[in-house]
Amino acid sequence: MTASPLLGQLMEALRCLPGVGPKSAQRMALHLLERDRPGGTRLAQALESAIERIGRCEQCRDLTEDPVCRICSDSRRDTSLLCVVESPSDVLAIEQATGYRGLYFVLMGRLSPLDGIGPEDLGLDELDRRLKDRTPAELIIATNPTVEGEATAIYLQRMASSYGIRATRISHGVPLGGELEFTDQSTIAHAFSSRLLVE
Amino acid sequence: MTASPLLGQLMEALRCLPGVGPKSAQRMALHLLERDRPGGTRLAQALESAIERIGRCEQCRDLTEDPVCRICSDSRRDTSLLCVVESPSDVLAIEQATGYRGLYFVLMGRLSPLDGIGPEDLGLDELDRRLKDRTPAELIIATNPTVEGEATAIYLQRMASSYGIRATRISHGVPLGGELEFTDQSTIAHAFSSRLLVE
Ligand SMILES: [Zn+2]
Ligand SMILES: [Zn+2]
Repeated sequence: MTASPLLGQLMEALRCLPGVGPKSAQRMALHLLERDRPGGTRLAQALESAIERIGRCEQCRDLTEDPVCRICSDSRRDTSLLCVVESPSDVLAIEQATGYRGLYFVLMGRLSPLDGIGPEDLGLDELDRRLKDRTPAELIIATNPTVEGEATAIYLQRMASSYGIRATRISHGVPLGGELEFTDQSTIAHAFSSRLLVE
Repeated sequence: MTASPLLGQLMEALRCLPGVGPKSAQRMALHLLERDRPGGTRLAQALESAIERIGRCEQCRDLTEDPVCRICSDSRRDTSLLCVVESPSDVLAIEQATGYRGLYFVLMGRLSPLDGIGPEDLGLDELDRRLKDRTPAELIIATNPTVEGEATAIYLQRMASSYGIRATRISHGVPLGGELEFTDQSTIAHAFSSRLLVE
């Protein structure tokens, strides 16, 4: 039996977090209650504000509490480059890893006819209007190298070409610092078939 | 740059959880916002209630939202057995693993003169009054097998003996299902020196 029903509820509620099983939930709940109540209060408030106020950017569909997100509304960004990604975490990854200064369009998914996910579900009609009205010089396709991500990439490539926009695709292959021995077979096969001529 | 300051704040706030680094915090924040807002709201509320309402049990010092916790106030528990543990997680572990039906006393720490943690910090004065006023038949000492836990155990053993109470200590050794090969040396040494005669 448990000495405190509220503690039991907190441990249960923590399990909504990905990767948190019963043991970690217990450790987290006891840590907050015994050692970091101010941190727990800040977390509760951050959760409430984020869930209540964060919606989608009108222009790029990324998560934001503003009508237009901080990236889209930053006048220093290069509007001639538009990078299409599947999810908000891809935007974070590119912002953290690269010096990219263009804009984004976030699909919030990928084409998957079997799951009933078609172009409208990914805002591709919005993207179409945008390519027409505020035509970028280059459309950078950064969908993931999965079957569905590739199908989405081909769809995007055709959209770009219908407006005469240059489309590029980020490269895929053996990760830098990776070793062939520890790279999965399909990555090796892809890297092999998309090999480039060197001098 | 980040598209949403509130998302950044949520990722930062999640890092108060033990074992959560920047990558997991990001994954958790995006999971809640994209896929489980009701879960996030429940978590915020559970955190707030727990932090606001959970204090210590007047009798056993365990975490609880009641003046006296559910275990201490359960008339079906055996009041002749009192088990002393270091922390609330030890109570949970014993409740989950055993059929123990006695009561607990939670030290919320262990004796550590070097850190300035003395008997009063662990409520040992309260425990002393309890042993005098509501003398149990047996004091089960379940502090951890560390140097400080052992020192605490010896202190508890003397308290029990001063009131003529039988003191027992939970056993330590090679874990069931464990193998000597993968057991640390001090556990093996302890298991060896506390070996029991078998028929
Ligand atoms: Zn935006
Ligand atoms: Zn209690």
